[in-house]
Amino acid sequence: MKVLVVNCGSSSLKYQLFNMDDESVMGKGLVERIGIEGSKITQTINGDKYSKEEPIEDHTKAIKMVFDFLTDKDHGVVESVDEIGAIGHRVLHGGEELIDSTLIDNKVKDIIRDYIKFGPLHNPANLMGIEACEKIVPGKPNVAVFDTAFHQTMPAYNYLYGIPYKYYEKYKLRKFGFHGTSHKYITHRTAELLGKNVDDINIISLHLGNGSSLAAIKNGKCINTTMGLTPLEGLIMGTRSGDLDPTIISFLQNEENLSPDEINTILNKESGVLGISGLSSDFRDLEEAHEKGDERATLALNMFHNRIRRFLGAYMIELGRVDAICFAGGVGENGTDTRYQVTKNLEDYGLILDEEKNQTRGEACISKADSQTKIFIVPTNEELMIARDTLKIVK
Amino acid sequence: MKVLVVNCGSSSLKYQLFNMDDESVMGKGLVERIGIEGSKITQTINGDKYSKEEPIEDHTKAIKMVFDFLTDKDHGVVESVDEIGAIGHRVLHGGEELIDSTLIDNKVKDIIRDYIKFGPLHNPANLMGIEACEKIVPGKPNVAVFDTAFHQTMPAYNYLYGIPYKYYEKYKLRKFGFHGTSHKYITHRTAELLGKNVDDINIISLHLGNGSSLAAIKNGKCINTTMGLTPLEGLIMGTRSGDLDPTIISFLQNEENLSPDEINTILNKESGVLGISGLSSDFRDLEEAHEKGDERATLALNMFHNRIRRFLGAYMIELGRVDAICFAGGVGENGTDTRYQVTKNLEDYGLILDEEKNQTRGEACISKADSQTKIFIVPTNEELMIARDTLKIVK
Repeated sequence: MKVLVVNCGSSSLKYQLFNMDDESVMGKGLVERIGIEGSKITQTINGDKYSKEEPIEDHTKAIKMVFDFLTDKDHGVVESVDEIGAIGHRVLHGGEELIDSTLIDNKVKDIIRDYIKFGPLHNPANLMGIEACEKIVPGKPNVAVFDTAFHQTMPAYNYLYGIPYKYYEKYKLRKFGFHGTSHKYITHRTAELLGKNVDDINIISLHLGNGSSLAAIKNGKCINTTMGLTPLEGLIMGTRSGDLDPTIISFLQNEENLSPDEINTILNKESGVLGISGLSSDFRDLEEAHEKGDERATLALNMFHNRIRRFLGAYMIELGRVDAICFAGGVGENGTDTRYQVTKNLEDYGLILDEEKNQTRGEACISKADSQTKIFIVPTNEELMIARDTLKIVK
Repeated sequence: MKVLVVNCGSSSLKYQLFNMDDESVMGKGLVERIGIEGSKITQTINGDKYSKEEPIEDHTKAIKMVFDFLTDKDHGVVESVDEIGAIGHRVLHGGEELIDSTLIDNKVKDIIRDYIKFGPLHNPANLMGIEACEKIVPGKPNVAVFDTAFHQTMPAYNYLYGIPYKYYEKYKLRKFGFHGTSHKYITHRTAELLGKNVDDINIISLHLGNGSSLAAIKNGKCINTTMGLTPLEGLIMGTRSGDLDPTIISFLQNEENLSPDEINTILNKESGVLGISGLSSDFRDLEEAHEKGDERATLALNMFHNRIRRFLGAYMIELGRVDAICFAGGVGENGTDTRYQVTKNLEDYGLILDEEKNQTRGEACISKADSQTKIFIVPTNEELMIARDTLKIVK
């Protein structure tokens, strides 16, 4: 079966078409500036790019153009929309109710709508993509794959916060976790790399990029993760603060006369390594500046690495036996120094990085032979995970 | 030399008089309800209690009564105020400027006044106590011992938050840490117990009570601690939330129409194990309820233990070699089950609790002989630490 994977943002839409017989990518594309002047669609098939600029006023028009492009006689990859068996949608927030990938019906859409409160930027866009598909290719099964779903196996003592219980009951204020599709992919792939059943492995998955999170996976299931109610919690990220003394918020609100939403913007968009360095949210820029002796860039990198180590230690204790720790995401896959800084001096705790092997890119085991816990680079593939889940559900 | 130790709250004052020749406590007392109807002073000398109820309108009157009581012909313990060589004051917040205990002059008082912004309940009361002593026994050396001082050896990558750097420059928004006098006492006492020089030991100090914090101590110096800008950060405590997704604050403010100060009150006074259990902030009540099958009490205890383990793991990784972990504070010293829950299943990481020895109270080593990292109960003694620092400074 061929499966289309759709990832909708508020003004952009990424897609990939998979042939699930061999899990190959038949084609992929990007719609940019939806509803904004200068809209454009670009499709890549076997390295050939084909693009078109024209007004794309909404997600329905965008989805229509995706199907037009996929079935284009000269530049397409399928003859007819009928060849596509199902559509898998990346959805940010499925809350407590949607604990696994699921076929989309009105009830599912209602839940996605409910959780706009915790995913105000993503869930509305995800819904628009779903409804556009329902309109443009009616009858085609749509599957939602949630960033939160994989984490819903966390025990209550990990997903609850130390606040009055009534707020959990009233608003579902709890840790949900994100990057779940990535952590799930990494978990399954690591089981293959270890030659074990997924239910038998304990791993720590490090998805490090502009947004970053760790997950502690016990017997193939998530028991803890660093992101929380929203993707703001946990590690220091590109522009996000991560964990704070909560008092900082009221202090800044009072001193700088900021509204709750203004402080949220600061913590999400102006903080993290960008806020500390005053330079960039891009880790490559920071490493360059660090090498040139920029002290604030060095500080930002030290803070980033140290917070990762903090959670690494926490999850090692939480898991007991750890079969592997797995680096993924832009920084996890390409950040040679990040991997070194995060794993150095942990010989006594069973982790020994092979510094030579660490120089590599792409999927690899980069620990020494006598490292009790293996260290892997596992390039993540959320789109493939979405396609797999979609196939499983429509079959 | 005899040293008086004073710990002022906003409406209470605790004191202890030490004979520093042998570090014995000559007498101690408590002034209650200062400025409130029903004021009372109670002094205990060798187990004999002597108390008096009379209006005590302010801290100056309270300090005057303390000296009257200490020199009382029938119920006192010294003949004259002249016998007391110095006064040590517990002060909550000394900020970045006061990194060690210090003789109090106007400059020191100005700094204590500056940091009222981060210690709005404690620093004003601490100042009142100091100024009362200056007035009642002029010329007597007053020494300030800060809850924050011991933590000021933390590296910048640990004390800074992932927020724009300008807020550190403008307001000194950073991690300060608290319970420092307790963590310092524990560190010095543990060096004695290990028979090592304090500069040679790496320990994790767990001060667990209604307020709780962990400190990671490397070569006798604090490199990280769980409390932050204020004592709200870190672990789940009796009534304090500890770490949260910062988004929770803006969400609750918007939904419940709460001011920054109202949300602060909720997070400081109505959260923690009290908020989760809906029952009590007292860990003894929760353990009793847990044994009777109260699920929310069990949940609160699980959350409390699990967060401690999280930081324990983080600090183990941060320290590398750990000579000992040390339990102190009301819950740390008396909570047999807490110590078990925090240290169980850590054999692979070098910690083996001796469950039989764990049944004890008072100072003890409670790990098995083959535990690489020793586990101690170290009843803390902040007053003695204050007296020692005071003596050292006035000498």
